[in-house]
Amino acid sequence: MTSLHDLETPVVVVDLDVVDQNVRRMAACAKESGARLRPHAKTHKIPELARLQLAAGAVGISLAKIGEAEVFADAGFDDVFLAYPVIGAEKARRLLALSDRMRLAIGADGVEGAASVGVVFGAARRRIDVLLKVDCGYHRVGVAPENAAQIAKRIADLPGVALRGVFTHAGHAYLAAGRAEIEEIARREGEILASAAASIRAEGVPVEEVSVGSTPTAKTVLSVPGVTECRPGNYVYHDASQVSLGTCSVEDCAMTVLATVVSVPASERAVLDCGSKTLSSDPLRPRADGHGWILGRKSRLEKLSEEHGVVRVEPGETFRVGERVRVLPNHACVVSNLHDRVTLVRGDEVEGDWAVAARGRVR
Amino acid sequence: MTSLHDLETPVVVVDLDVVDQNVRRMAACAKESGARLRPHAKTHKIPELARLQLAAGAVGISLAKIGEAEVFADAGFDDVFLAYPVIGAEKARRLLALSDRMRLAIGADGVEGAASVGVVFGAARRRIDVLLKVDCGYHRVGVAPENAAQIAKRIADLPGVALRGVFTHAGHAYLAAGRAEIEEIARREGEILASAAASIRAEGVPVEEVSVGSTPTAKTVLSVPGVTECRPGNYVYHDASQVSLGTCSVEDCAMTVLATVVSVPASERAVLDCGSKTLSSDPLRPRADGHGWILGRKSRLEKLSEEHGVVRVEPGETFRVGERVRVLPNHACVVSNLHDRVTLVRGDEVEGDWAVAARGRVR
Repeated sequence: MTSLHDLETPVVVVDLDVVDQNVRRMAACAKESGARLRPHAKTHKIPELARLQLAAGAVGISLAKIGEAEVFADAGFDDVFLAYPVIGAEKARRLLALSDRMRLAIGADGVEGAASVGVVFGAARRRIDVLLKVDCGYHRVGVAPENAAQIAKRIADLPGVALRGVFTHAGHAYLAAGRAEIEEIARREGEILASAAASIRAEGVPVEEVSVGSTPTAKTVLSVPGVTECRPGNYVYHDASQVSLGTCSVEDCAMTVLATVVSVPASERAVLDCGSKTLSSDPLRPRADGHGWILGRKSRLEKLSEEHGVVRVEPGETFRVGERVRVLPNHACVVSNLHDRVTLVRGDEVEGDWAVAARGRVR
Repeated sequence: MTSLHDLETPVVVVDLDVVDQNVRRMAACAKESGARLRPHAKTHKIPELARLQLAAGAVGISLAKIGEAEVFADAGFDDVFLAYPVIGAEKARRLLALSDRMRLAIGADGVEGAASVGVVFGAARRRIDVLLKVDCGYHRVGVAPENAAQIAKRIADLPGVALRGVFTHAGHAYLAAGRAEIEEIARREGEILASAAASIRAEGVPVEEVSVGSTPTAKTVLSVPGVTECRPGNYVYHDASQVSLGTCSVEDCAMTVLATVVSVPASERAVLDCGSKTLSSDPLRPRADGHGWILGRKSRLEKLSEEHGVVRVEPGETFRVGERVRVLPNHACVVSNLHDRVTLVRGDEVEGDWAVAARGRVR
């Protein structure tokens, strides 16, 4: 049996025992609430892992890009929501081909975008399922809640479009000051979306899906009345940001980067063979503070360049050239996008690896 | 002929006319100085592009990882310097195999690391060329200049090792306040390294290569007496950071990301279909300020999430859903690492594409 300690570094390591636990817990949480779970598979981009999520009770998966959905369709997945405002005729033609292979829905946050896809589906005498994105306070994309009914009605009336429901994402939870604020954001996330759904129904437009979700807000928002679906992604791995947000403990983090100390140029500085090409430059949430934690140490990654991770060595700690350490990344989802494969372990035993099959699908 | 305007977005676009100009200019600059040019191919990771650099006069290429060198070896490249402190027996065995196929050197910044590779080469009755990294003020890796002679002598005496020379990288130029400070850093870069080389020679140890270089410092440091080789990388593409540093103008930037406006949720906010999965989260240099410039506009990318580029719309500018824009990234090298292929253009005409063959080679 290969040991973790025999692996060449840097390498992304995924502990399947922790993944199993994370998948099971979120599925139980959704089941208890009565809402459906549709995990965002952008976090891992791995069909084998999404199959574990389906086996635990997820009804389907969420993705962001058509190219990702094409990879998952090839792997046999048959129910995908592209939680993104997909627009334009060229994308619509790819969606039309995909919709022959799966139950498919896309996001929209305006009439014009939905119409640009609907016109292609309408010409083929088909309809694309659309969920209207509502802004619950993140202020990235999405319509203002008070405009949801009017825009939803116009989208529902478009040729080639079937309005399936509404969705939102409380990304501002990642900047919250603590758990109390996150829980308040989560309640508002659910209430704003349920209320938007009610306003749309009041216009005579049916709303089948009321879809919320992010890993920090999932547990709370799942219990809000009217929510039908939740789309957390990160929970399958977790990361240093989730620990900082109070979503989980370090022991609940499944993804680490095994790295080697390649230089100790000064007593207060050590350099690892993992930089932004391995960990990404994504900041820690909720407050930017370095570029990754070293398991079992107080010392943290202070700076990254592409191939160098510079550790500020805390007093009393030492690093020696050739030593191996495990780094907990700031943000697991973007690490997945940097690597062709991840190595699977249970504890220190290597069980194999998985291709990150949907990595790099930007279109 | 396909037009740029027919491409599906987001897509990384490389203008070959600009690449040709950038390659020619840096080659002329090196030729004039009498020093050798060994571009760092991490910027593009594309053998076809490195061939243009060799054709213009480069003597070989620099890379950071063995996996990258293996890709370039497969493409026929026969002179590579791994400008990185490569350590350990497993890596040494891969280096040994590589050294059958090319003239190869690695970096080292300590006796222990060089010894860990030398022992494998020595056992095979071979020697690995090593360049000692000297810290010229960046304080990442590298030995202090005053220790260079003593450490170089010990490395030169190691079994399985041949000391080829010294190298440095003035990464702190990327944080400089202006061109005057960059030029001062560049002069110091050259002088410190040439002086370290002299101190090593004074110990009776030959120093063949005195290798410097980064794109912002290249022109100045090339003219410092004693410098034999320069390793700029970014110049082939340039980016918004180089423009900010005064290294070049926007017109000298060869890499852009063609993107589509997918949402205009508010008059002051537009959202593009390129986020950190397309552009990376790398900050602008010398001072962090947003995540990319939009050509022909004052409005800039203010925030990124993985698939969303959020534009703060400047007063008087408008964006409409479906409109296409070209984004100049903060940092071209890391963009290369995110994409399997880049699309080649000359002006608005598409000429084909290249695989980013050494993308993602982290080991």
